[in-house]
Amino acid sequence: MRAEDALTHYLGQLRPVNKVLADIAAKREDELAKPAKSLGMLETLAIKLSSIQNRLRPRHERKLMVVCAGDHGVYEEGVSPWPKSVTYQQVLNFSKGGGAITTISKAAKAQVILLDVGVDYEFPPFEDPEPSDSFPPPPRRVSRKVAFGTKNLAKGPAMTREEAAQSIVAGIETVLGEPYLDLVGAGEMGICNTTPSSCIAAVYTGLSPDEVTGVGSGLNEAQRLVKADVVRRALELNKPDPSDPLGVLAKVGGLEIGAMAGVYLGGAIRGAGVVMDGFIGAAAGLIASKLAPGLTDYMFAGHKSKEKAHGLVMEGMGLRPLLDLDMCLGEGSGAAVAMLILMCACAHFNEMKTFSESAVDNRN
Amino acid sequence: MRAEDALTHYLGQLRPVNKVLADIAAKREDELAKPAKSLGMLETLAIKLSSIQNRLRPRHERKLMVVCAGDHGVYEEGVSPWPKSVTYQQVLNFSKGGGAITTISKAAKAQVILLDVGVDYEFPPFEDPEPSDSFPPPPRRVSRKVAFGTKNLAKGPAMTREEAAQSIVAGIETVLGEPYLDLVGAGEMGICNTTPSSCIAAVYTGLSPDEVTGVGSGLNEAQRLVKADVVRRALELNKPDPSDPLGVLAKVGGLEIGAMAGVYLGGAIRGAGVVMDGFIGAAAGLIASKLAPGLTDYMFAGHKSKEKAHGLVMEGMGLRPLLDLDMCLGEGSGAAVAMLILMCACAHFNEMKTFSESAVDNRN
Repeated sequence: MRAEDALTHYLGQLRPVNKVLADIAAKREDELAKPAKSLGMLETLAIKLSSIQNRLRPRHERKLMVVCAGDHGVYEEGVSPWPKSVTYQQVLNFSKGGGAITTISKAAKAQVILLDVGVDYEFPPFEDPEPSDSFPPPPRRVSRKVAFGTKNLAKGPAMTREEAAQSIVAGIETVLGEPYLDLVGAGEMGICNTTPSSCIAAVYTGLSPDEVTGVGSGLNEAQRLVKADVVRRALELNKPDPSDPLGVLAKVGGLEIGAMAGVYLGGAIRGAGVVMDGFIGAAAGLIASKLAPGLTDYMFAGHKSKEKAHGLVMEGMGLRPLLDLDMCLGEGSGAAVAMLILMCACAHFNEMKTFSESAVDNRN
Repeated sequence: MRAEDALTHYLGQLRPVNKVLADIAAKREDELAKPAKSLGMLETLAIKLSSIQNRLRPRHERKLMVVCAGDHGVYEEGVSPWPKSVTYQQVLNFSKGGGAITTISKAAKAQVILLDVGVDYEFPPFEDPEPSDSFPPPPRRVSRKVAFGTKNLAKGPAMTREEAAQSIVAGIETVLGEPYLDLVGAGEMGICNTTPSSCIAAVYTGLSPDEVTGVGSGLNEAQRLVKADVVRRALELNKPDPSDPLGVLAKVGGLEIGAMAGVYLGGAIRGAGVVMDGFIGAAAGLIASKLAPGLTDYMFAGHKSKEKAHGLVMEGMGLRPLLDLDMCLGEGSGAAVAMLILMCACAHFNEMKTFSESAVDNRN
């Protein structure tokens, strides 16, 4: 089966969230022994999660963080201050638990899967970690390689339409293959991947190449201007059509961005809360939510990244970031921290007593 | 010994944080395999915690949340929409684990102590919870009652100077009596306690009674104006002197506010990171940091509350809130969530590999 057909099949599996449960949950919030609305976003998050999970008592216990990895042909344009080798080196570092995302995920008790869809490197066979009763288990590596990196989007489409669909399906099927899930986050590793993300953001926000192009992982202003010009050329050359999100991904996207979009879709199909990370996660979120408009009902904006256009993209999606900690690393790091906020949302909602249960007088 | 003498003794035990360790920690941050500063506040928090704890590797494992409770004579002025009985009812609810603070603290793995310094209620004997190997243990109640509530600060001083000192010492000694601590937070329960908090905020920010007076736990605008007028009268009548923080607490403060100030001081004396909650916590923070100016080096602003003047008070203390989730419940709820951010700060700092350890290439 062509990947695009598989994608169409999976998109058909996405159901609307349960709005009736949201109403029931909102009623329960108002009965809990506290001033109405006094827990702010913890309340709205619990209500949303209840409607997503189709549960009277939302859960956070089984958390999955899928870190999608891929390389980018646009590297040759000089849009990153880092050597391209860092992509595969970090995947290896993550597989040993030494990266930011693996340490924070461990603290947040989220299981990590490293999903290679496009790293320009032949990984040595990865030995599955020793079986262990501890949760989360050590990071696991999954290979669904579509290509050894994308082509240079400043000179033509980054990939074929079929490759784009393959990357999304890889993300979906990785999530669907896991047992019971409450929260699913996506992270990424891919040197240069803020460049395709800026392209996608420009397509869907109408902002100019300069406005959507930030400093990424440490450009100076002269380098940022070079990158903005690459974004401009990529858009002019490829002419991505906003009404065709798969085409946008193929023309100016990235393999790991497609996989992240798939992770979101897979999480939503499974009825789990979906947590986005930073700017690259937002670009993937744009693709996924254009493919499946109901998807934002399943999504949480983990944090507001320092990367320039991220806040605006989240606003456009109607999502308020849970955190604003000046983070701009990616990898899923902000999403992993945000899962802990969702844990607190579940904790108060599920375990607090109501006014009548606690024998606390309600207002005069 | 007079409590004021005991307080002077304890203030003498507070040492400066270790700035040399902060420099060493900052150097380590830059060696970890990620773009410099890309973890934003998670980095600055880890560095600060290292200097506070005097440890090369900061810790978060032993977290304590002391919920200080007291009543307020100013209740008779109609400054709260809630019956006064809610103070003791919530303490009883917390002792059974049914409150927001106890559920969130449990999720954050923070031990809860309920410290009664001024509740206008004779509690039944509290049976210590069954010994348990699980951490955190169930909430424990500690009685250090100074009085059955304060007097009406709109008609005279809320308490004597000695009572104010007793409340602070109760907080200090409660913390000092606990085994090994990494993070200490303070919360509160006390119907009407945003009124004394507004008075303290006015004393130390120079803002007007109207500017420091918010809606508390659910006033309408007419009620808020009544409360602002109470604040104005209290300040005019009692003439608190900003250079005498103990006098400010005695004249226009509250017993649980004093105890919270003591919890901060006790935490700092113990070399733990100190986490403030919302507006009432900020008022206590003002008192404590005026008593011991080095204290802010130990302090974290857990979150930015919706209560009107809170953000300005935090700014005045030079502290950036870790969270902004529209919370305004108090109890310590925001501080408990913030402890999880500090956990992530520790996790990345202690467990990430450096560039050389991970064989990841540093920048070109």
